Amino acid sequence: MDLIEEMEERKEVVEQRMEEIFRKERAHPLWEYMFYYPESGGKKLRPFLAMITAEAFGESKNKALPYGISLELVHNFTLVHDDIMDQDDLRRGKPTLHQKIGDAEAINAGDGLFALSFNILSQTDVEGEKIRRLLEELSSSILKIAEGQEEDMRFEDTFEIREEDFIQMIKKKTAYLFSAATRGGTMIADCDDKEIERMGNFAKKMGIAFQIQDDYLDLVGDEDKIGKDVGSDIKEGKRTLMVIKALSELPERKKDRLIEILEEDNDQEDIKEAMDLMRDARAIEYSKNLAKTYAEEAKSELEIVPDPEYRSILEEVVDFVISREK
Amino acid sequence: MDLIEEMEERKEVVEQRMEEIFRKERAHPLWEYMFYYPESGGKKLRPFLAMITAEAFGESKNKALPYGISLELVHNFTLVHDDIMDQDDLRRGKPTLHQKIGDAEAINAGDGLFALSFNILSQTDVEGEKIRRLLEELSSSILKIAEGQEEDMRFEDTFEIREEDFIQMIKKKTAYLFSAATRGGTMIADCDDKEIERMGNFAKKMGIAFQIQDDYLDLVGDEDKIGKDVGSDIKEGKRTLMVIKALSELPERKKDRLIEILEEDNDQEDIKEAMDLMRDARAIEYSKNLAKTYAEEAKSELEIVPDPEYRSILEEVVDFVISREK
Repeated sequence: MDLIEEMEERKEVVEQRMEEIFRKERAHPLWEYMFYYPESGGKKLRPFLAMITAEAFGESKNKALPYGISLELVHNFTLVHDDIMDQDDLRRGKPTLHQKIGDAEAINAGDGLFALSFNILSQTDVEGEKIRRLLEELSSSILKIAEGQEEDMRFEDTFEIREEDFIQMIKKKTAYLFSAATRGGTMIADCDDKEIERMGNFAKKMGIAFQIQDDYLDLVGDEDKIGKDVGSDIKEGKRTLMVIKALSELPERKKDRLIEILEEDNDQEDIKEAMDLMRDARAIEYSKNLAKTYAEEAKSELEIVPDPEYRSILEEVVDFVISREK
Repeated sequence: MDLIEEMEERKEVVEQRMEEIFRKERAHPLWEYMFYYPESGGKKLRPFLAMITAEAFGESKNKALPYGISLELVHNFTLVHDDIMDQDDLRRGKPTLHQKIGDAEAINAGDGLFALSFNILSQTDVEGEKIRRLLEELSSSILKIAEGQEEDMRFEDTFEIREEDFIQMIKKKTAYLFSAATRGGTMIADCDDKEIERMGNFAKKMGIAFQIQDDYLDLVGDEDKIGKDVGSDIKEGKRTLMVIKALSELPERKKDRLIEILEEDNDQEDIKEAMDLMRDARAIEYSKNLAKTYAEEAKSELEIVPDPEYRSILEEVVDFVISREK
């Protein structure tokens, strides 16, 4: 099995099904708005995780497809609302939805995606009691996302952020939905509690690594690949692990300068200076290493996967997550 | 059975359960924000409808409580997001949530309520296949709400609104969630398709009457009771049934004047003038009568209810909806 091939294959199935779902109702303008992010690309990583996990535990190929689509729609709804909350202008190289249609209509389109996600969930071809468990799983993960988002917004008012609180926040904002993907996949595949739990832990750890890599790419990535300006997090004063680490390592004067750049209007020169300060503090290296540590921990959970071929493909997903360039 | 007593009794049960749900997690600031609307009063009409309908078809007393709470949370999430979209300042006599905590955090708190609603749904004490049906019902009704909201926002750009399109819009924005309440109640009570459908039609028609009455109260209600300024819809240029009717009935010059008042900055004098114009066109009377017609149609669906005592209490709900003062 080749990871890229397997991902591509399922991505196509997911995109095709989403096309069908949205085309059915697209006469309504709301549905056009709702489809703007889902049809603009993306890795479809969450559906892939749900589907490949179900298969790894013996389930048939597309059994977890509707659930995977639910996850992808939830992911897209969070992108729509996050972009409004953060007032971001670009997503995947295109104007964000609220930039195109206004805040009010984008809030509403996000709500539509949210509702559609649960509507698709009800169509999953599993017995009713499993629908209940998937519903519990998916809704709980969204509650975590909202808690994480609130925590993230609170971080904007302070530079006194403990690393463990930061990790807790990205766990909620990113890792729980990954975990809902693999836990849901194992539930669909009739796994026992132990298997569900370990595959959930696998995804949570990978999710943390994923988010650290995301922040890393914003700093050192290729603009064409990541679809936004490099250094945009610094420009917006975002508290990333690299910032938190640098602030804890730098001597007072350099620390104050970094805070100044993050807090005030900054230009390309300032952003470069901030990067140098983070490099001085070895914060970028630290961050990269921490992502690797979480990735290794994630892999160690995979001993629960019976089929070595699937175990190996899931290990590759982890490597992909921390080495991806977009 | 006395309607007010029955409503009060279930309202207390609903509020107590919500208090338990929110108190459990309230250490997190997100949950405090989420609880701001649910704890600020409201009639708890949707849970009441779900619960009384289930009982009317022989179900035990609190069987539909969790589902009722799901409905109430959905209702509250729509209030939070609608208030942001409309940039309203007051709700139930208090500052709206986004006025208190800012748009970004209010969007997120609304999302939290949305997620919590589905989380509570998963706890409903019915068999799994019913969870699936309730999930389908609730998520579909929210999709309708979002469509209706989009249509409502589009009406803001025009005065050429056909009455049937307006009715369609309020049906989506208001009536479908009422219908999800009674349909869900009948599903929980093991009703057959015919019963589910007719109780759904009952609630849809009542929901339309409810919304017409809501717009009516904004014009002629008591400020202390409705918790906002009388005439605020005119102030904001909102297209209500009364406006649409007046525009279709008034002679050209008066029509232009009404449009002018609605479109431009207006003071108390202008608002009074707009009301007089609507009275001239018999638009207020027309609106009141249409609400009554829908109310009567709603009642006629109730012949499906076997127990005369419950039939009569459900008729009283309809009367309450079109005669209420807040």
